[in-house]
Amino acid sequence: MMMDRVLITGATGFIGGRLTARLVRDGRGVAAVVRAGSDVSRLPSGVQAIEHDGDVAALTAAIAGWRPQLAFHLASLYLADHRPSDVGALVASNITFAAGLAEALTAAGVTRLVNTGTAWQHFGTSAYLPVNLYAATKQAAGDLLRFYHDAHCLSVVTLKLFDSYGPGDTRRKLIQLLVDAARSGEMLGMSPGEQVVDLTHVDDLVEAFLMAGERVLADDDPRWEEFFVGGERMTVRALAALVADVLDMPGKAQFGARPYRVREVMCPPDAAPLLPRWTPRIGLEAGIRALAGR
Amino acid sequence: MMMDRVLITGATGFIGGRLTARLVRDGRGVAAVVRAGSDVSRLPSGVQAIEHDGDVAALTAAIAGWRPQLAFHLASLYLADHRPSDVGALVASNITFAAGLAEALTAAGVTRLVNTGTAWQHFGTSAYLPVNLYAATKQAAGDLLRFYHDAHCLSVVTLKLFDSYGPGDTRRKLIQLLVDAARSGEMLGMSPGEQVVDLTHVDDLVEAFLMAGERVLADDDPRWEEFFVGGERMTVRALAALVADVLDMPGKAQFGARPYRVREVMCPPDAAPLLPRWTPRIGLEAGIRALAGR
Repeated sequence: MMMDRVLITGATGFIGGRLTARLVRDGRGVAAVVRAGSDVSRLPSGVQAIEHDGDVAALTAAIAGWRPQLAFHLASLYLADHRPSDVGALVASNITFAAGLAEALTAAGVTRLVNTGTAWQHFGTSAYLPVNLYAATKQAAGDLLRFYHDAHCLSVVTLKLFDSYGPGDTRRKLIQLLVDAARSGEMLGMSPGEQVVDLTHVDDLVEAFLMAGERVLADDDPRWEEFFVGGERMTVRALAALVADVLDMPGKAQFGARPYRVREVMCPPDAAPLLPRWTPRIGLEAGIRALAGR
Repeated sequence: MMMDRVLITGATGFIGGRLTARLVRDGRGVAAVVRAGSDVSRLPSGVQAIEHDGDVAALTAAIAGWRPQLAFHLASLYLADHRPSDVGALVASNITFAAGLAEALTAAGVTRLVNTGTAWQHFGTSAYLPVNLYAATKQAAGDLLRFYHDAHCLSVVTLKLFDSYGPGDTRRKLIQLLVDAARSGEMLGMSPGEQVVDLTHVDDLVEAFLMAGERVLADDDPRWEEFFVGGERMTVRALAALVADVLDMPGKAQFGARPYRVREVMCPPDAAPLLPRWTPRIGLEAGIRALAGR
């Protein structure tokens, strides 16, 4: 089956936005499910917006009208730590929306889904052990998708991601903070920095999602597969040194200025099984160099 | 630790109502978390109602004020089959509420919880395989509780229930339908009836919840335990014959008048591991006899 027409969620986010742009560039028809009231001007031109206010019947009708061959589900609310008042939003964004999407897809006859999980569902173990409530909501969403797989033949390939970086990232994550600190000369207060991070360039993740899409389209036997996408690792200290080296500027990371996060992941879980045939092409040094415009 | 003061959810439901009445009769202090706007006149006198509108901070404050030693979580929305418009309500009742409860309990310093699951999380297997979306939401809620167990030392004993029956059941389930049909003389259109059901009297379930409560109070080491509660089984045909026999009236079940449900559970999963030291005391014949006033 061809990937002519796709549905995507999370198209206004970092990875989803990059994937959407790539799909459009490759000439695919793309419809993006966005929260009602979203700023659709952030979508690339040519992308059809499907506004979703929680009405599953309306979403079903919109999907049936678009007739995609598959859906990429990247929408999520990520919170490393949550406050009590965040619980409802985490469940709504990461579970309720996923359930409504699966219901609407299967009701509309779309039975192929690429889903997004997180390596943080596995805190130092290959079994389920969530690092944070965010990771638990991702596991919970997978439990609901499993029903649609079993009862409605929804073919699901889930990609479990580690950390990501690259152009267009507005999330103010580590690499960007290190670059900004080096350039501004302001010290960046950090943890002791001995934790290992696993970073993948967003364009390598886009390749992974496209490969997962081909995988879920490859045959009619409903799949239930989960793969990790990641594997390039270094300590936060080594990463800070690499950023300083690439920029050829003194590093401004002040290690030990802050404590480790409660439940800090010191060593990420094995990235196994890795998505078959996927290998990252953009090494950390090259990725940071491009990001820093060097 | 004593079970002096408890918190309960689902107190206006069938099993939760029976458990609440028993706790009150045993002299425990009972506060019931009910949905804002619930009919609290259905609560036994002496039970304090805590209305919950989704505000986790307010729920935390109410729980902290009550200072229970443990919580019994029995609230749930049960739907054997769901329509697309039910997805939001299933997630809200069975997942969002459970997450908010766990957040509020741990924030209030209450670290002991008896949770309720369903045997339908295991469709013909000891692994997770949901019979219906209801069962999937129960699995998902358990995955969120797992975060509170790991990160906040919430001790959780989950009881996975099969079918239940007994006095005060307003759910119009099988035994009552059979009794009513025999008495009214109207034929009851049924499936072919070869499926095996697993039925426990509500008073035996109440005993199980009390034993689980004692278990979760027994030590300070946070538990993560799941047990089945059930085990008395017969085919629907045999059950119909037993009801007719107890009533000494001709049975009115018309087998084969309806098809089996899609994903009918023909044979329930093993009730293993069973809650230790629990054994049902009320056999099906005695239970039906009491229910029918014979």
